[in-house]
Amino acid sequence: MQTSSLSFAAKPSFLSTPIRVKSQYKQNTSSDTKIMATPKWAQKTVVLPAQKRGCHLVTPKIVKESEQDLSGFKCGLANFFLQHTSASLTINENYDTDVRHDTETFLNKIVPEGPSAPWKHTMEGPDDMPAHIKSSMFGCALTVPITDGRLNMGTWQGIWLCEHRDYATPRKIVVTLNGV
Amino acid sequence: MQTSSLSFAAKPSFLSTPIRVKSQYKQNTSSDTKIMATPKWAQKTVVLPAQKRGCHLVTPKIVKESEQDLSGFKCGLANFFLQHTSASLTINENYDTDVRHDTETFLNKIVPEGPSAPWKHTMEGPDDMPAHIKSSMFGCALTVPITDGRLNMGTWQGIWLCEHRDYATPRKIVVTLNGV
Amino acid sequence: MQTSSLSFAAKPSFLSTPIRVKSQYKQNTSSDTKIMATPKWAQKTVVLPAQKRGCHLVTPKIVKESEQDLSGFKCGLANFFLQHTSASLTINENYDTDVRHDTETFLNKIVPEGPSAPWKHTMEGPDDMPAHIKSSMFGCALTVPITDGRLNMGTWQGIWLCEHRDYATPRKIVVTLNGV
Repeated sequence: MQTSSLSFAAKPSFLSTPIRVKSQYKQNTSSDTKIMATPKWAQKTVVLPAQKRGCHLVTPKIVKESEQDLSGFKCGLANFFLQHTSASLTINENYDTDVRHDTETFLNKIVPEGPSAPWKHTMEGPDDMPAHIKSSMFGCALTVPITDGRLNMGTWQGIWLCEHRDYATPRKIVVTLNGV
Repeated sequence: MQTSSLSFAAKPSFLSTPIRVKSQYKQNTSSDTKIMATPKWAQKTVVLPAQKRGCHLVTPKIVKESEQDLSGFKCGLANFFLQHTSASLTINENYDTDVRHDTETFLNKIVPEGPSAPWKHTMEGPDDMPAHIKSSMFGCALTVPITDGRLNMGTWQGIWLCEHRDYATPRKIVVTLNGV
Repeated sequence: MQTSSLSFAAKPSFLSTPIRVKSQYKQNTSSDTKIMATPKWAQKTVVLPAQKRGCHLVTPKIVKESEQDLSGFKCGLANFFLQHTSASLTINENYDTDVRHDTETFLNKIVPEGPSAPWKHTMEGPDDMPAHIKSSMFGCALTVPITDGRLNMGTWQGIWLCEHRDYATPRKIVVTLNGV
């Protein structure tokens, strides 16, 4: 039996700090499998066009490609997996473009590039080794909860594709949806 | 058919290095679905009270809110998703408070703040843009295995909420449990 | 009903940018559960032998221990969870060993170590606190899509175990597979 959007009263707090809890979804754990929803899976590869070096808000593009599938899930998880080692996926602010600009400034400040940089791996250009490092700093994968057919991110959260190469190529993201 | 806590002998090694493997859970892949456990899902939002700037061990609080649901899973995954862009979730040492203190020292050292910082995004205070950067450095989401009804973390691992704002607000974490 | 390797024509683009999409897997959302595959779970702990400080490509080792289980999944997710706080798991370039070398160079440059470092937590050696910080920078967990019985990473992607301690011990990774 599924009970969605079920609001619980706040539970007694842990230590002295109040913690509010809202249960969004809970499946009956009854052994009667006939009345339990069978989990569904959907997977596709989304190819984003080449972007210039920097941080880009891509939530609308990714959601547009996934929303038909997303709408079929009451509760679940969406995994976004970037199949590259010189770009990254991260979740950050979705409103002010200056935040993306400043993040790119930070990445370039923290990871040296050019003749004075200490890298041995230089055969693919001066921006390549810094790109690999930035990719591991921010990561190439995200897992986001699905609630009532939508990605359950915060109001100000968005998915960023951070392109770390000067001359980028299209970037592939494997989108895997799983839930009930 | 479920067979839990099944210990396998070590398999032949890859190259010359020994790798030890212990199988904790393996479902029968038989097509007879009647004897396969149907996966369950549970999802709730936990609201942690405002914490002061710095790194905080929150495993007890999060587990307390999830343990009733967790106990129903023999094998699965728990996803913790922080719905904010100026704080982060990470897994690190759960014992010595100095480790949390030193990590905050590192973050403040690596991300400049104040009048000399190069940020364009300053309208929400000098600590806001650094907070966004720190959030992407450590990330806002964790996926942890569930084994025998408990989070299967290492002995010294704990979940940290890292608060990057000076004047923080309560922080929402969507907890999604999935397994059998 | 399962339809695998189904190619869709490109959908109309979002804004003016073309996005190519290939659907790899889509389950019928029919309520007739008899013809839907019941999701499977497998979980094991892989123990990698002690590695020297630095970044190591471990995809072959991990895949070797998981491939028998992996082969049973048409579509799914693989979670790799390192149960330690002084090492990390990341995905990066799988070809040139210089990339791993340079990444270690970067980590040591960015996280100070030794007498001049500002750490309070020093009782476990000068490399311990830097190791904790590096662990949170790169993270201890990865979730990778499974497609047609294999990890669906990009051509140049591999899983790295980054050992941040001078005198390392064997490292445990909980591998959790879930899919249909």
